[in-house]
Amino acid sequence: MAADHFNVGLLGLGTVGSAFAELLEERAGEIERFNGRRPVISGVLTRTRGSFEDVLSDADLLVELIGGIEPARGYLLRALCAGKDVVSANKQLLSQHGEELFETAREHDVRLRFEAAVAGAVPVVRVLEESLSATPIERIHGIVNGTTNFILTEMARGSTYAEALAEAQRVGYAEADPSDDVSGRDAAAKMAILARLAFGSPVHLDDVRYEGIEHLHGDDLEYARELGLGLKLVGTAERCQGGLSVHVHPTFLYSGHPLAAVSGPFNAVTVESETITELTMSGPGAGGLQTASAVLGDVVSVMTGGARPPAPPLALALIEDVESAYYLHLDVADRPGVLASVTKVLGEHDVSIKSVVQRGMGEHARLVMVTHPVLESSLREAVQRVGEFDFVRSEPRTIRVIEEEFV
Amino acid sequence: MAADHFNVGLLGLGTVGSAFAELLEERAGEIERFNGRRPVISGVLTRTRGSFEDVLSDADLLVELIGGIEPARGYLLRALCAGKDVVSANKQLLSQHGEELFETAREHDVRLRFEAAVAGAVPVVRVLEESLSATPIERIHGIVNGTTNFILTEMARGSTYAEALAEAQRVGYAEADPSDDVSGRDAAAKMAILARLAFGSPVHLDDVRYEGIEHLHGDDLEYARELGLGLKLVGTAERCQGGLSVHVHPTFLYSGHPLAAVSGPFNAVTVESETITELTMSGPGAGGLQTASAVLGDVVSVMTGGARPPAPPLALALIEDVESAYYLHLDVADRPGVLASVTKVLGEHDVSIKSVVQRGMGEHARLVMVTHPVLESSLREAVQRVGEFDFVRSEPRTIRVIEEEFV
Repeated sequence: MAADHFNVGLLGLGTVGSAFAELLEERAGEIERFNGRRPVISGVLTRTRGSFEDVLSDADLLVELIGGIEPARGYLLRALCAGKDVVSANKQLLSQHGEELFETAREHDVRLRFEAAVAGAVPVVRVLEESLSATPIERIHGIVNGTTNFILTEMARGSTYAEALAEAQRVGYAEADPSDDVSGRDAAAKMAILARLAFGSPVHLDDVRYEGIEHLHGDDLEYARELGLGLKLVGTAERCQGGLSVHVHPTFLYSGHPLAAVSGPFNAVTVESETITELTMSGPGAGGLQTASAVLGDVVSVMTGGARPPAPPLALALIEDVESAYYLHLDVADRPGVLASVTKVLGEHDVSIKSVVQRGMGEHARLVMVTHPVLESSLREAVQRVGEFDFVRSEPRTIRVIEEEFV
Repeated sequence: MAADHFNVGLLGLGTVGSAFAELLEERAGEIERFNGRRPVISGVLTRTRGSFEDVLSDADLLVELIGGIEPARGYLLRALCAGKDVVSANKQLLSQHGEELFETAREHDVRLRFEAAVAGAVPVVRVLEESLSATPIERIHGIVNGTTNFILTEMARGSTYAEALAEAQRVGYAEADPSDDVSGRDAAAKMAILARLAFGSPVHLDDVRYEGIEHLHGDDLEYARELGLGLKLVGTAERCQGGLSVHVHPTFLYSGHPLAAVSGPFNAVTVESETITELTMSGPGAGGLQTASAVLGDVVSVMTGGARPPAPPLALALIEDVESAYYLHLDVADRPGVLASVTKVLGEHDVSIKSVVQRGMGEHARLVMVTHPVLESSLREAVQRVGEFDFVRSEPRTIRVIEEEFV
């Protein structure tokens, strides 16, 4: 290799790996014009060809696009220990073994970049790590899974969950086994990574409470529309009670919220801070070319000398019981005193009501409410007591609501 | 100063300068934790105190928050020639003397950062310079002036231009002399800077065609609503005909466009590229604390060794006559054959109609159309010929329209 080449070793040559190799070749001239060195793929390792040792020893930087935990973890640790900078798009690995990788990178004073692990080409990792590194962040809300956002967009247009999922599979936004996406687990991994970046405190995938979209009722979406709400799968990472809370839930948003308009397979992240008030970034969540573009951006930033090894972690307590507003759906007998009984119990648990829609349906009625913010534990206790009334005909349903903050 | 201090010389101590000094002090500990060095203000120059030479010689990096052309330009050139990195928030200077500053920074191998010059805390400069440095960009649309966006938001709610401007002045979003904002000149300066970053070709403020919002009619907003359009002051920088076009105009957007939902004093920028499809960033456009936060982000990025001196410029031709869809408003006599005569002339100039609203008003009628994309020169010729018909009762009005691209 010529001395003015920058050698990139590539692990994995699937959809993203191939797109990356092609994009790198296409953009090499322009990158050289800016940086003085021309990036080239100096070696490739796939399941069937190449030797890791050879790829590693030839490389100035290693790009990991294998995915999954092993052998990716072993390869990255060896690369970092060998003093090589690393770029990875591996959200599973980073959300479960991030601290081990960060610690190793710090010890060996090398860079570990992972823009493509969260929200595809939306540069939220770099913005958190760099632009906002001097900004005290209060809260992040993210739509970080395009599959579920596509499904919810279809459901908002009247499809059932099953129809919407089938459509997502047909157009290639959902896999044959969609459980990692629809369960919220994929979003939880990304929120763990974002929370680590925003708050500097280690967050493991297992620390993130998540809830998926499989059990949503079409009529919840319908009632919510009457209350001016739209439904998204939202990940939240926020400071609270001196600690940190990270969770993923189906969440109702008022139409004025910057995430409310994000539809189809798009991703978006809103960062809140007293200093900057609010910053929102949105774009396509995934796709081979978008991910490849984010990976190449990381390669270029290592070439230009930007980015430092990860900072040592802080240790914030992880808080489980946090405040939120809630949507509450009750299927009740249509008789006098029902609303009074319900609101009395809610009041005893500090649950105060912001808005109510009541609608009679023969002998039954639907009582749909939005509460003011309340501790989850109080809400759960109140709802359990409400569910014990004999006039309540089916299990009460609750969904989080993010309040309109910028009116 | 201690050896582990990073000395920041500060030029200007107005609203932003004071907010910056305060924010830096507040965040110094956290920045030191990440970077090993503690940033401190080593000297301040204001109109009445301090000596530039002293501030310069004590500083590792100079922050310029004076604004305007001189003396800021002279100070920055001297700092760059002295081998000091520079951070500036000065959009006037960068849009009129950018190439001179970039050239000087390149010669002396120092950094020149200016995130705060465009869109406040929205990190569009860094994202263009770094995340997207390896991405071929096709087009940028930006709402980059918060004052006009606030006024247009008020007008969309029914205020007249005069009322909306008065309200903007009352709440502090518009200055006593608002001409730089409402004429589109401020937005033009920012688009010149963004175009330089996105396309690598020098763009001077004088190269940007701009048109303000002073002459908008309330009834244009009303008719447009019927066509599903909202009005924004949009800056556009795009590749076309092998060259580059940069312009700022009042522009109608369909409700699905990512900029359509940006309201009040917010800024937003959408970047389009085949590789990433579309990326949108939005947030508060200005305000002392937001700007200070962007400046501090730049300081930190210099401390961490990120960012290189500006790349040498490419030279793309600047194209004036570009294609766009248009809204066309005609005040006509209500008699047979009018629509036929108008559409015939439009057709002769390759102007094809996408949608029409016609409404009788006694002897008059309003004819409101949206065209498919057409060269501006063709549209102008067609409209001039239409205006010569005796049944046209007042000057035809035209406003650009950005088509719905992601349906």
